[in-house]
Amino acid sequence: MESIKTRRTIRKYTNQNISSELLNAMLEEASRAATMGNLQLYSVIVTRDIAMKEKLSPIHFNQPMVRNAPVVLTICADFRRVTDWCSQRKAHPGYDNFLSFMNAAIDALLLTQNFCTIAEDNGLGTCFLGTTIYNAGQLVEILDLPELVVPVATITVGYPDENPQQPDRLPLESFIHEEYYHPYTNKDIDKYYSFKESLQENKDFIALNKTETLAQIFTDIRYRKEDNEMMSKTFLETLKKQGFLS
Amino acid sequence: MESIKTRRTIRKYTNQNISSELLNAMLEEASRAATMGNLQLYSVIVTRDIAMKEKLSPIHFNQPMVRNAPVVLTICADFRRVTDWCSQRKAHPGYDNFLSFMNAAIDALLLTQNFCTIAEDNGLGTCFLGTTIYNAGQLVEILDLPELVVPVATITVGYPDENPQQPDRLPLESFIHEEYYHPYTNKDIDKYYSFKESLQENKDFIALNKTETLAQIFTDIRYRKEDNEMMSKTFLETLKKQGFLS
Repeated sequence: MESIKTRRTIRKYTNQNISSELLNAMLEEASRAATMGNLQLYSVIVTRDIAMKEKLSPIHFNQPMVRNAPVVLTICADFRRVTDWCSQRKAHPGYDNFLSFMNAAIDALLLTQNFCTIAEDNGLGTCFLGTTIYNAGQLVEILDLPELVVPVATITVGYPDENPQQPDRLPLESFIHEEYYHPYTNKDIDKYYSFKESLQENKDFIALNKTETLAQIFTDIRYRKEDNEMMSKTFLETLKKQGFLS
Repeated sequence: MESIKTRRTIRKYTNQNISSELLNAMLEEASRAATMGNLQLYSVIVTRDIAMKEKLSPIHFNQPMVRNAPVVLTICADFRRVTDWCSQRKAHPGYDNFLSFMNAAIDALLLTQNFCTIAEDNGLGTCFLGTTIYNAGQLVEILDLPELVVPVATITVGYPDENPQQPDRLPLESFIHEEYYHPYTNKDIDKYYSFKESLQENKDFIALNKTETLAQIFTDIRYRKEDNEMMSKTFLETLKKQGFLS
């Protein structure tokens, strides 16, 4: 599929709006993704309001896409609606646990990717914001999310105002394992990461960040152990507060 | 996109094989999905061997797709490869925590949905097996998954040998919230679930299962509180054993 093959993240958007008709048609189509027991364990919060974007922006480390995109979607793992349905139908729901969170997160993420594919096929650009789970607790407050609803993904969407190069990807053999997982030898690692390490942009990135290796940019600057541990704690607290760890 | 709009889960496959060339091309294309820091935090275990399918089958509650599909893919959240790369490049990885598991699970699930879309566009049928996280610990054993690798999705793939009806979906308005989450009123729930409850197949399902309501089939038979709680415990134990909760 051409739109998938040539896909790249789009962070700059024109000021053209996305009509409700188009957005709704795309979200409806996205809901064709597989879902547990056909329960559709997700909700999508649509942000168009400028004041709401201002509130969301710091949650996403003030990345400019949040303010500049016509539409921001926060996709949530949601067992609230099903739980309400069960309670209203003489059934006793038991979805206030970690497995149920994972089931709902899976549904939400399949919907998210389906939506991105459809949006890109419609000429739109998207950016996936991984920051959602870093500050899930604050998103709960801002978006009024009730118990059994936890945000797992944010997508900014708009008409592209840039045409960036496609980033590199690891060779296929690096992430495919036939029948069993084959542990990586030192030689494998050298082979799989050599192309990435050879790119001028990554060499420039090392110089800019004054590290010795590219990997150190990830461990020492971008995704640090102490930050990961702190955010693990707050994300688990959010799961608990939202009723998924009882 | 027609292949998404008309999509349905396919559980019966012809005995036509999927060539390695096609499978690899589709997996490579799927890896164009968004990924955290371009780190591609996933691995895919490809099962074609009949003996391996026999081993996987009980993990997936002996659903016949596992034995009958030419290809079974187990998609794993994987911080092993990146951690090995970091260790080999004088960097100190800090990805043995819950946030890192979530980051890798997100990458893995976006890849999974991308693959399904591509496969379906190529005339193949897929079935998503939610059972993967129910028995993740056993999959770790069977597939030799090392620390920092946890399975999150399984897909069976093959050429369709059935043409089932598309299942119903909730109306769009039931899972979309403008700006804020709007709590569901009793009237909303009645409205959103009435179509599903009116379907003859669901009425038959109630009769067959001798429940009073459709919701009770989910709470009392398919996704029971006690099972969810037990599987929450074992999944968290697997995350711990695989090094994601230290």
